Amino acid sequence: MKILAIDSSGLVAGVAVAEGDTLLAEYTTNYKKTHSQTLLPMLDEVKRMIELDLSSLDAIAVAAGPGSFTGLRIGSATAKGLGLALNKPLISVPTVDALAMNLYGTSAYICPIMDARRSQVYTGIYTFVRETYGEKEDGAEKGMESSFRLQIIRPQYVAPIEEVAETLNGLPERKDVIFLGDGVPVFAGRLRELMKRPYVCAPASCNRQRAAAVAVLAQQYAREGRLENARDHAPEYLRPSQAERTRREKEGRAGKMDQNGQEQDDHADL
Amino acid sequence: MKILAIDSSGLVAGVAVAEGDTLLAEYTTNYKKTHSQTLLPMLDEVKRMIELDLSSLDAIAVAAGPGSFTGLRIGSATAKGLGLALNKPLISVPTVDALAMNLYGTSAYICPIMDARRSQVYTGIYTFVRETYGEKEDGAEKGMESSFRLQIIRPQYVAPIEEVAETLNGLPERKDVIFLGDGVPVFAGRLRELMKRPYVCAPASCNRQRAAAVAVLAQQYAREGRLENARDHAPEYLRPSQAERTRREKEGRAGKMDQNGQEQDDHADL
Repeated sequence: MKILAIDSSGLVAGVAVAEGDTLLAEYTTNYKKTHSQTLLPMLDEVKRMIELDLSSLDAIAVAAGPGSFTGLRIGSATAKGLGLALNKPLISVPTVDALAMNLYGTSAYICPIMDARRSQVYTGIYTFVRETYGEKEDGAEKGMESSFRLQIIRPQYVAPIEEVAETLNGLPERKDVIFLGDGVPVFAGRLRELMKRPYVCAPASCNRQRAAAVAVLAQQYAREGRLENARDHAPEYLRPSQAERTRREKEGRAGKMDQNGQEQDDHADL
Repeated sequence: MKILAIDSSGLVAGVAVAEGDTLLAEYTTNYKKTHSQTLLPMLDEVKRMIELDLSSLDAIAVAAGPGSFTGLRIGSATAKGLGLALNKPLISVPTVDALAMNLYGTSAYICPIMDARRSQVYTGIYTFVRETYGEKEDGAEKGMESSFRLQIIRPQYVAPIEEVAETLNGLPERKDVIFLGDGVPVFAGRLRELMKRPYVCAPASCNRQRAAAVAVLAQQYAREGRLENARDHAPEYLRPSQAERTRREKEGRAGKMDQNGQEQDDHADL
């Protein structure tokens, strides 16, 4: 299965092409340019370099949120455009799950944190568990080909860093925590104050979004039949945008005048 | 510290630029083109995309072997050329160590295997150990910012796969093994027969050379003062090339006639 994966959920722009266990190409940049300046030129560059025939793809995977609203729209629009033009299915990969996938095989708790502004982070809690899918008897000893599965302890959500640290401190197993994501430099000081168990911040090679991780999770989702029609795909913002909040507040005030203060739902996904 | 890292030790061509905990760019391809067709164009593309001023680099890091002889020569020649032209130091990173770095934070045994032909692999055995470098007393509980260090259990070497499996089976701790590298598809069948403890083969996102991993290890080496003059740098082949072996065999036969059979050293690094 040949997958093109796109991630523009944060400051990082990433494009990857994977086929089975082979990463054919990956291109990642973390620079002050906007995704509209980077993502399509990067895809075009990769396509040229590996002589990629887009019609040979089986699916388009995209980091579908949460993340930067503009970034997510650019990523989803690109994926939808490609999916519709090429008549290929889309695979939506939760951004925070894909970040956790960067730390393949670790038995520590993995906690990606993305700065969500307003003192909040987009986060989730993960670990890897080994699953054995073959078995061999060899005298008294056993050798077994196995794999690690990303275990979602708490699916992606949005919360203040204090709440996240409290949840991590209260986890049952005696494990370290590995933090990664663009929230790490923002909340480094708070984490030092709040954390009550040993923790590590991932290094440059694995601490931000990677389209290759999106591609690998997408392969798993494809096996599970989690394909979408390009027409139906929408990003998962987890939280309304600032513009949306402002509009709702205005409508809420108007609504209160009109309808005697009816509550507006501020938590619906857009 | 801003580092440009290059890896052309295997089929993969990779370029990365890292500064501290930030990966500014990474470009990886695994395609049938030769490194002479890919490596410099990829570097040029990255330079253009992130508007990289090469004179702002602090060092050039290179995956210095073992690996493909031609690949290593192209990587080292590129790094030496850049180092000499820019007057920057080089940092040689052992290829197998950099591969192990792909699995940051895992407590399993990591065993990269690169196909070295003639039924041998370039390999090494690694794991990650947590080191605490800060400590905090917080009532009865402790929260500690820590890091994982790549522990080299057996430094990179060349051996038949049977010998590698035997060594892994005999390791003392009850840990899984994670294999990665281009030797995995070549020796998958043999590993199933030989392995007597659970093992996992890493997925596409982390199973081949990554220049970002070279960059992160290079940062550590730089802190330890392991910088080289570009003029002095040479790749570490671990084993003489086929051409060299053929030449030595001929010289050996000639030598035997001339000097009554003096042994030639077939194991010197070239």
